[in-house]
Amino acid sequence: MCKLDINCDMGESFGRYRIGNDEEVIKYITSANIACGFHAGDPNIMRKTVQLALKHGVAIGAHPGFDDLRGFGRREINVSAADVYNLVIYQIGAIQAFVTAEGGTLEHVKPHGALYNIAARRKDIAEAIAEAVYAVNPELILFGLANSESIAAAKRIGLRVAREVFADRTYEKDGTLTPRERPNALITDPEKAIAQVLSIVKRRYVVSTCGSQVPLTADTVCIHGDGSDALTFAEKLQDVLRREGVTVTRARDIV
Amino acid sequence: MCKLDINCDMGESFGRYRIGNDEEVIKYITSANIACGFHAGDPNIMRKTVQLALKHGVAIGAHPGFDDLRGFGRREINVSAADVYNLVIYQIGAIQAFVTAEGGTLEHVKPHGALYNIAARRKDIAEAIAEAVYAVNPELILFGLANSESIAAAKRIGLRVAREVFADRTYEKDGTLTPRERPNALITDPEKAIAQVLSIVKRRYVVSTCGSQVPLTADTVCIHGDGSDALTFAEKLQDVLRREGVTVTRARDIV
Amino acid sequence: MCKLDINCDMGESFGRYRIGNDEEVIKYITSANIACGFHAGDPNIMRKTVQLALKHGVAIGAHPGFDDLRGFGRREINVSAADVYNLVIYQIGAIQAFVTAEGGTLEHVKPHGALYNIAARRKDIAEAIAEAVYAVNPELILFGLANSESIAAAKRIGLRVAREVFADRTYEKDGTLTPRERPNALITDPEKAIAQVLSIVKRRYVVSTCGSQVPLTADTVCIHGDGSDALTFAEKLQDVLRREGVTVTRARDIV
Amino acid sequence: MCKLDINCDMGESFGRYRIGNDEEVIKYITSANIACGFHAGDPNIMRKTVQLALKHGVAIGAHPGFDDLRGFGRREINVSAADVYNLVIYQIGAIQAFVTAEGGTLEHVKPHGALYNIAARRKDIAEAIAEAVYAVNPELILFGLANSESIAAAKRIGLRVAREVFADRTYEKDGTLTPRERPNALITDPEKAIAQVLSIVKRRYVVSTCGSQVPLTADTVCIHGDGSDALTFAEKLQDVLRREGVTVTRARDIV
Repeated sequence: MCKLDINCDMGESFGRYRIGNDEEVIKYITSANIACGFHAGDPNIMRKTVQLALKHGVAIGAHPGFDDLRGFGRREINVSAADVYNLVIYQIGAIQAFVTAEGGTLEHVKPHGALYNIAARRKDIAEAIAEAVYAVNPELILFGLANSESIAAAKRIGLRVAREVFADRTYEKDGTLTPRERPNALITDPEKAIAQVLSIVKRRYVVSTCGSQVPLTADTVCIHGDGSDALTFAEKLQDVLRREGVTVTRARDIV
Repeated sequence: MCKLDINCDMGESFGRYRIGNDEEVIKYITSANIACGFHAGDPNIMRKTVQLALKHGVAIGAHPGFDDLRGFGRREINVSAADVYNLVIYQIGAIQAFVTAEGGTLEHVKPHGALYNIAARRKDIAEAIAEAVYAVNPELILFGLANSESIAAAKRIGLRVAREVFADRTYEKDGTLTPRERPNALITDPEKAIAQVLSIVKRRYVVSTCGSQVPLTADTVCIHGDGSDALTFAEKLQDVLRREGVTVTRARDIV
Repeated sequence: MCKLDINCDMGESFGRYRIGNDEEVIKYITSANIACGFHAGDPNIMRKTVQLALKHGVAIGAHPGFDDLRGFGRREINVSAADVYNLVIYQIGAIQAFVTAEGGTLEHVKPHGALYNIAARRKDIAEAIAEAVYAVNPELILFGLANSESIAAAKRIGLRVAREVFADRTYEKDGTLTPRERPNALITDPEKAIAQVLSIVKRRYVVSTCGSQVPLTADTVCIHGDGSDALTFAEKLQDVLRREGVTVTRARDIV
Repeated sequence: MCKLDINCDMGESFGRYRIGNDEEVIKYITSANIACGFHAGDPNIMRKTVQLALKHGVAIGAHPGFDDLRGFGRREINVSAADVYNLVIYQIGAIQAFVTAEGGTLEHVKPHGALYNIAARRKDIAEAIAEAVYAVNPELILFGLANSESIAAAKRIGLRVAREVFADRTYEKDGTLTPRERPNALITDPEKAIAQVLSIVKRRYVVSTCGSQVPLTADTVCIHGDGSDALTFAEKLQDVLRREGVTVTRARDIV
C-alpha cells in the first residue's frame, strides 16, 4: 500500500506584507511547514497559521531558515555548524510555544531555502540540524531531500525522517536534483509533474534527465502555495493520487 | 524567616557586541533573566547564557522585550495586547528550547524594559503577558513590579508571582517608583540602597520620598550587571542579607 | 488660478514582498514619496521606484519613517528629537543617492505614518525634521499636514512647504483631522471625497463634522496606491480637477 | 618622496552597544571609514562619528557592508552584482547626508568585511561597487586591496584608487594575502608588522611567506581600533613612518 504526505510552506507573510494563499492551499495538504520569524513570518502570523493548521487537521512543522528577511532565506550565508545548531533550536522553540498554547503537537521540522540546500550537501550542517532537532524533541520528524546528507545525518542521530521529493524539478542520473541554472531543471507541464510523483511513489524510481531509471523513495512531496496555478495543481495531484490508490496522509503515519 | 531572590538581566550581548559581565555577576544572583533575541541576545548568546546559569545553579527565566534592538527594548512602542501576547509566547518558546536542549527547566518570565513598564500600568498589556505565560506553561513564575498591574493580572490568571523591588530607585507615598526624570529618582549611595532593600525585606515597608512608611513586600530584587560598581554592590548586598538572616534563594522557594 | 499637487506613497515593497500598484498609480500623480528602507522599501526597490518616477516625469520625494518594518512605520515609538533628526538625515541621504545616480533631482520630503502624525502635533519633533531637511538641502520642500506643527516648524526654519490635505478623512471645526477611532473619521464615498478636495482647492474651506466652514488651504492631496478602488479614484479625481480648471502639477510649481 | 595614508574602520557601535575606541584612535589616522548602518552603525552613531572626524581633520569615507548586523558584515552572503550596486549606492548616500549636514566632504569609499573580500576576487562584484561609487560621485576615491579585482575595476571605470595593504597579514608569492586559516597568516609581532609596512612603502615590495620579494605598492594601510594594543601600535607606526621620512597624509594628497 502506497502512502504519501503532501507538504507546503506556510505563514510566510510578515507585518503588513502578504505572501501565499494559506487559507486555500491548506485544504490540499497534510503537513504545513510554518515559518518561524527568521526568513519570514512574525509572531502574529505564526499564531494565526498554527490555528489554521489545527482547524484543518494538518500536521504542523517548524520551518526554520536563515535570519534574512531581505533575501527570504534564499541567499546562502557562510555560517558555522554551531550557528546553525542554535538558530534551529531557537526557531523550533518559538513555533513550539504557539503550538503548545493552541493545544496542538509539533510533528516535524523542515529547514527552509538556502539552509535546506546547504544541509542537503554539507555533512556538518546536516548534523547540526539533526542534533538541534533531537535536542529539543527526539520525537520530531526531520524532512529533508531524499538521498541527501540531511537524511543520512538525521538517521545516524536517531530521528525519524521524511524523504522529500519534488514534483516540478528534474533529477540527474545520480539521484540529485538538476541544478536550477540548467535549462531542463524545471518541469513546467503539470501532467508531467504529476506523472513524476506517481512514478516515484508507485514504482520507486524517477526517470533522470538522461533517460535512466534512478531509484528514489518518497515519504513526502512539496507543493507551492504561491501563484495562480498552485491550487489547481494541488487539487489535481490529490485527485490523481487518490485515484491511483495512494493514501495521502501526514508523515507520522508513514515513517 | 525572611527570604529573597536576587535577579539580574543576562545574555544581552548580540553578535560581535558585548554588554554586561555575566560570568562574574552570575556568582551573586539566584535568578537570571535571559534576553530572547528581540531587544537583545541572539541564538548563540542564548545557549551560552543558559549553560552559564545551569553551571552556577541559577534559576533561568525568559526576558522577553520589544523587537527593538536599536532602542534596546527601552523605547515604548504603541502595540496592541494581541501583539504583546504573541511576542511573549514567541520569546518564551525560543529560550525554553535552549533550556530543554541543555537539560534544564525554565522557571520564570520577566518582561524587559518598556514592556515591563507598560505592563506595570496598563491592565490589558499586563493581562496579555500573563495569559501568554500561562498558555505556554502555567508553572512559570511571573516577575513584575510589586503593587503593579502586572502582579494583579498574573494572580487573576492563576500564575505564581514574584514581586520585584529595586535597590537603587526611590518610591512615592503611593508605593509607585519615583519617575526617572525627577531629581530624587535614583539612590546612588550603595549603603542607602542596601538599607532600602533591608527595610523592605525585614520590615515590609519602604520610606517614601515624603518620609512616610509605605507597605511593600518583596520576593525578588533586581540588580544590574553593568558598570564597574555592579559587582561590588552585588557582593555587599549578598553579605549584608546573609548577616541579617535573610535567606537568598531562587523565587520558586519563596512564592 | 487653482493648482494642486497629487502625491502618493511608493516603493513600499520589501525583498520578495510586494505592496502597492506603483506602475499604475504613477500615471495619476505628480509627486512620489519613496520609502527609504526603514518602515518599508529596500535598496533594490528604491532604485526601481526612482527609475519609474523619472520615466513618468513625477517629482521624487523622500518618505522617511521609523525603523519598524514589522509595524510598517505606523506604530508610535518614543523617540527623542535627536533620534528623529538623525533618522531623517540618513533616509534623505539614501534616496538622494539613487536620484543622483539616475540623473534626477530630489524635490521634497514627506515623513511617513507615525512620524508624520507625531510631527503634526509635537513642536520638537517637527523642528527636528525641518532642521534635518534644511541641513541636507535647503531647497527641498517639506510636505506636512496643513495647519500642523510640521508646517509651522518648516516655515520658521526657512523651508518651502506643501500643505497636505486628505480626500478621505473628515475634519473637525478646529481644522484638525477627525481621529481615526471616531465613527465619522473616514469618507468612504468617492464622490464626497472628491467634493471635499474641490471645496478646499477652489473655495479654501472644508466643511467640518459640525457643519461649519473651516478655512483650509491645500498645496497637495494624498491618494493611496493600494486597493482595487485606488486607481479608479485617482483617475476620477484627475478628471474632475481638470474639468474644474484646477491645474494638477508638482509642488515646486505651486509653493 | 614617500607618502602613506593610514585608515581605520570607525563608527561601528550600534544603539546601546559599543565597539572600538574611536576617540583615541582618530588621533593616529588620516582616513576614517565610517559604518553606514548595515553591518554596524546607526544614524546617531554616524553623526557623532562624522563630527569626530571633522574635529580631528581626518578624511571621511563611507564603509558600506552587507546588511548583516548579526554577523558584523563578515559572513559571505550570496548576492548578485545588482544587489551590491544598490546597497553601495544606499550606504554612500546615507553617510554623505551626514557629511553634508556637518559641512564636510566625503572623500572615499571602502567596502567592509565580506563585501571587501568578495570584491577583491570577483570581477562582477568589484565592477558593481565601482559603478555605484562613480554614479553617486565620480570624485570619490575607492579603497581596495592592492593588486585585486577591486582596484582593477575602479581604474577601468575611471575612479581614483587607494591601494590598501595590511601591516599584520602575510603575503603569498603571487601578492595575495595568505588565507586566514593558514598558521602563518597573521603577523603578531608589532615590530615585524611595522617593518613590513616600511618595506612596502619605501622599497615597494613585500617579503612573501616563501621568502621571495613581491612587488607591492601601497597608498594606504589599514589599522585596527579595537584591542588594548591597537593604540600603542598606531602610535609606534606613526613615529616610525615619520622618522623614516614617510609623509602620513590623507589619500587625496597621494592618489
